[in-house]
Amino acid sequence: MTREAWPLIEQAQSIFLIAHVDPDGDTIGSTLALGYALRQMGKDCTLACSDPVPRILSFLPGIDEFSTPSIGQCDVVITVDASDPGRLGGAYEGVLTMGLPILNIDHHVTNTRFATVNLVRPKASATAEIVFDLLREWKVEINSLLATYLLTGIVTDTQSFSTSSTSPRTLEVASELARAGASLIEINEHYYKSKDPGTLRLWGRMLDCMRVDGRLVWSINTVRMREECQAGSDNGNGMVNLLVSVREAAAAILFKEYEGNRVEISIRSRPGVDISAIAVHFGGGGHPQAAGAVLNGNLETAIPRVLAKAREVLDYGC
Amino acid sequence: MTREAWPLIEQAQSIFLIAHVDPDGDTIGSTLALGYALRQMGKDCTLACSDPVPRILSFLPGIDEFSTPSIGQCDVVITVDASDPGRLGGAYEGVLTMGLPILNIDHHVTNTRFATVNLVRPKASATAEIVFDLLREWKVEINSLLATYLLTGIVTDTQSFSTSSTSPRTLEVASELARAGASLIEINEHYYKSKDPGTLRLWGRMLDCMRVDGRLVWSINTVRMREECQAGSDNGNGMVNLLVSVREAAAAILFKEYEGNRVEISIRSRPGVDISAIAVHFGGGGHPQAAGAVLNGNLETAIPRVLAKAREVLDYGC
Repeated sequence: MTREAWPLIEQAQSIFLIAHVDPDGDTIGSTLALGYALRQMGKDCTLACSDPVPRILSFLPGIDEFSTPSIGQCDVVITVDASDPGRLGGAYEGVLTMGLPILNIDHHVTNTRFATVNLVRPKASATAEIVFDLLREWKVEINSLLATYLLTGIVTDTQSFSTSSTSPRTLEVASELARAGASLIEINEHYYKSKDPGTLRLWGRMLDCMRVDGRLVWSINTVRMREECQAGSDNGNGMVNLLVSVREAAAAILFKEYEGNRVEISIRSRPGVDISAIAVHFGGGGHPQAAGAVLNGNLETAIPRVLAKAREVLDYGC
Repeated sequence: MTREAWPLIEQAQSIFLIAHVDPDGDTIGSTLALGYALRQMGKDCTLACSDPVPRILSFLPGIDEFSTPSIGQCDVVITVDASDPGRLGGAYEGVLTMGLPILNIDHHVTNTRFATVNLVRPKASATAEIVFDLLREWKVEINSLLATYLLTGIVTDTQSFSTSSTSPRTLEVASELARAGASLIEINEHYYKSKDPGTLRLWGRMLDCMRVDGRLVWSINTVRMREECQAGSDNGNGMVNLLVSVREAAAAILFKEYEGNRVEISIRSRPGVDISAIAVHFGGGGHPQAAGAVLNGNLETAIPRVLAKAREVLDYGC
């Protein structure tokens, strides 16, 4: 499948790469790796993202390059780790109407195959795992910088090799990236061991608000909590993983309130429990064990709607 | 080096395997794997440990076999993951005086090479990594049970591939074990993802009480907090590791109040910052990056005394 990507790239001189909204280590690491490799082949690359890159990823060289320019003149667009055009964010969700060839590289099972060429592998633990194969096929030498970009994608998306998507192949690729010079320790120190005090205070508040409702564990992350804890709006996203580690939990949901009457839900589940239907019901998407959606409305209206749907899905689903 | 082990084993019919005191996933997983493999070769094996095996490892088949029999008649003793005879515990620390051939399999840099044959590899992330090579050399087929034993050793000793001992080889071995049928997910689910809700509530309260004082981060764990959260008295011990992951932190201290006018302090620091002097000053001890002590008195008196000493040590120490 990787072979279909090349004809789209081969003739292109100018390539516009888009990381998804609310960017994580996988979309950013994979986009940086692709940009670096394509430039080595003499291509002009623009790295774009609708949202600012979280500070926790600032240890990655080249991170400052991400901005939100208009697409303008380019020969091909590559979307990275985005399951549907909505995940490209306000600045780019209209890209399908521009008549440009698009390469969609992603590992989400819910990917809508919206592009000219869809390099979608739901069995990959991270989009970075697909990019690794792509670069191998393109005969790009994986140096320590490329290895660091890709291992960051894998380590962050698998929560340090602990998600159900972590396969023998994932560990093998990680081993090759470590041999190529990526430092697992450095990535872990930067990503997991340089926490913002405001984020930890916010974690405290979210744990204070934790509710165990049968096999469902949930909590909230409000605008006010973030203000009081002096935590940035991109903080607190790891909490839902902690919530689902509660012994009783089959699934966990975190409700994140935004200004402007929006609530983002992040859902996680135990292996064998598929919660993607909850996200899809509310117009979102994701994986069986990790999914999300954005609802219009406030917490008071969103929570009962989502909990009702979650109970229904959990009743059927396990 | 693995080759020297075989002559000791080859002639032996009866083998006595000893896991270390305060047993962890590596000593238990490695001992189970060795016992299983040696029995396949027709040997009689006894699995011993001075201490009970922790409940968190009870998902490993065969775990009930561990007991504390006297060594009695056997042809060879294998010590597993023990850096010195003291680590064999009260029941077995005298094994050196019995005149038996001993095979010492370990990865601790501090191993005292106390045995007849010392298979000690400080570069291995876990003793299980060494046992993997040993079984390969002995031409033992690694089935899914053996793979589960060994991967449990690696995953628990590397804290899910995040310690500095995790090498490319570690990831490669893990990949082979996963291919052989070990389920990384299952090990993680059992070992890391069965948290008590009371513990998480307590974590929330401790994070609420977190203070950042220059390069020192600290919090408290009171009797009342544990009661209100319905957390057991042994809960909340992982918190100091989370506190030292704060970006600003050179060191972190957790003050744990006990009934009867006692306060236990747990101290952690970043690599390069030695905080053992704080613990030693209050009659405790430990390592440069992890130390502790117990003080008489209440939190009101203990906190200012310890913080004053900590500031002094940190001023000199970094």
